[in-house]
Amino acid sequence: MSGKTNEITKIGEFGLIELLTRNIKLKNSSSEKGVGDDAAVLDLRQMKTVVTTDLLTEGIHFDLMYTPLKHLGYKAVVVNLSDVYAMNAIPTQILVSIAVSSKFTTERIEELYDGIHLACERYGVDLVGGDTTSSLTGLTLSVVAIGSAPAEKITYRSGARENDLICVSGDLGGAFMGLQLLEREKKIFQTAGAGQPDLSDFSYVLERQLKPEARRDIVNLLAAKGIQPSSMIDISDGLSSEVLHLCKASGTGCRLYADRLPIADEIRKAAEELHLEAATIALNGGEDYELLFTVPLADFEKVSALDEITILGHMENTSNGNYLVMPDGSLVELTSMGWNSFVEE
Amino acid sequence: MSGKTNEITKIGEFGLIELLTRNIKLKNSSSEKGVGDDAAVLDLRQMKTVVTTDLLTEGIHFDLMYTPLKHLGYKAVVVNLSDVYAMNAIPTQILVSIAVSSKFTTERIEELYDGIHLACERYGVDLVGGDTTSSLTGLTLSVVAIGSAPAEKITYRSGARENDLICVSGDLGGAFMGLQLLEREKKIFQTAGAGQPDLSDFSYVLERQLKPEARRDIVNLLAAKGIQPSSMIDISDGLSSEVLHLCKASGTGCRLYADRLPIADEIRKAAEELHLEAATIALNGGEDYELLFTVPLADFEKVSALDEITILGHMENTSNGNYLVMPDGSLVELTSMGWNSFVEE
Repeated sequence: MSGKTNEITKIGEFGLIELLTRNIKLKNSSSEKGVGDDAAVLDLRQMKTVVTTDLLTEGIHFDLMYTPLKHLGYKAVVVNLSDVYAMNAIPTQILVSIAVSSKFTTERIEELYDGIHLACERYGVDLVGGDTTSSLTGLTLSVVAIGSAPAEKITYRSGARENDLICVSGDLGGAFMGLQLLEREKKIFQTAGAGQPDLSDFSYVLERQLKPEARRDIVNLLAAKGIQPSSMIDISDGLSSEVLHLCKASGTGCRLYADRLPIADEIRKAAEELHLEAATIALNGGEDYELLFTVPLADFEKVSALDEITILGHMENTSNGNYLVMPDGSLVELTSMGWNSFVEE
Repeated sequence: MSGKTNEITKIGEFGLIELLTRNIKLKNSSSEKGVGDDAAVLDLRQMKTVVTTDLLTEGIHFDLMYTPLKHLGYKAVVVNLSDVYAMNAIPTQILVSIAVSSKFTTERIEELYDGIHLACERYGVDLVGGDTTSSLTGLTLSVVAIGSAPAEKITYRSGARENDLICVSGDLGGAFMGLQLLEREKKIFQTAGAGQPDLSDFSYVLERQLKPEARRDIVNLLAAKGIQPSSMIDISDGLSSEVLHLCKASGTGCRLYADRLPIADEIRKAAEELHLEAATIALNGGEDYELLFTVPLADFEKVSALDEITILGHMENTSNGNYLVMPDGSLVELTSMGWNSFVEE
């Protein structure tokens, strides 16, 4: 132990917890007791409760070479909230655990928590617990999100039926393109030792990667328009993989139309610069955290009217398989490892 | 990637999840939907909900050189259930996340989950979710435990009052002694390369370290005897540290009597063999997962009659400080870093 004032070893686990939780004010009436006891206490009597958790490890889920810690904290919360919204529920509490090696200063951990607190603020959730501990190497983050919804609103992956419309919010492929650009700049930096790269043309895709948002607005919009999805999932692994999850859970097949894939101009431009096929990226690039859902055919008018929603295709009988329909009418089988097989077509 | 059939890379994350969750049967009526959607769905309407989480990292919280994976899985669940019991609540669900490096085979992960499932079975909790992911180095485990209790039964750290009796279940120091023995044998093995050590004289302290139990029986016993603790915490960091948590949260001081410390014969024997002071270990050794709680003085008769409970002392006015009373009547200040200062007295 050296005498540096900012080392974690100096203030200890309890000191660190106090430092990180001193400004927490609970916002939800269901948060009865937050940080500071053996467990948080929640009052969730009027609703069904949904719970989800994600574990993020350094070098696998994030690279601290190009990920600002504040962004990382924000994103770690958002990806969990996204799972709650994907149940058509409203998140109300989170718990955050971190394991850090001794090389981390308390200032860096506070940066991480700045992002965590910002996400809590933006999404109206309370940080009610967690764990703060050591690791031999690297940073590990575990976030738990808890939310609730009336029983009739909870939307499972398994509720889709034949002929239901397959819909998606926003656009696809941005987060993956952002990651490719960051990885490219990292390689350039490591080999040439160049200065800050000019990525100003690509601020959208970089933000999609570094600071994604969860689609609370879509959940609210669907409720406001009286649309109850029959099934829903968030896009963390890629559209192709997620639609197959819905099909498997619902016992359906599907048709997605390639020319319907929502791809932003900047994503096309970035794909071109990196010699990648934008449609492939939109199908298989992960981490967009858009909502993929199905609605009964009867809701066609309602969903068509929504700018933020694209109808991608429809559910089929399971015997008809899962296919992407190309502009020429040919069919390409969807697979969750689809990236390579699709490229080879 | 090699062609070995047991490598995780071969079956992938989704394959691994299927493998690990194929035998799960939900036991609690509050577990509406478990593994397999974006989030678990729980129906907790009749109760207050308590939630807690712990993050365990290889090399910090466990050493795979002497920790069987099945034991590790069991313990990872138990330490979280212990936090739920420490709220005087009954655990009903857990979520388990693991991050493993590619050196881990699926067989080894199944061993870990055998322990997780065994703990679920023993304690009647449902595994309803989690995350399965990669790490660059080592094994990381994150467990979330959810439980519930009627509002009037929830027991916080903050409820103790002056003159309340300080009580503890079971005996203290065993888990720490077990750890010392395992560490000693590891060093002997590393230097001398000896065979299996004979630790049969110390099966109790080894089990306290490797396969602790959470005190569900004590929570049930207190309920059966009509004893509502005024405050409660589980002993993960050591008696001295935990009693100070109760005092700080409750705004009280305390007196613990050194000659009341419950120390099993085997713990004394192990301490002697390792030239350690048993009372010091009982005060400061962690991981016993016993319940430390306070009751009003009026409950003296009731708690005195319980074999599994020891009355250690009482709460004082906060101005009287926090002290251990030695057999000769002298006072030793309790500190959460008490190990060294106490030894030096």
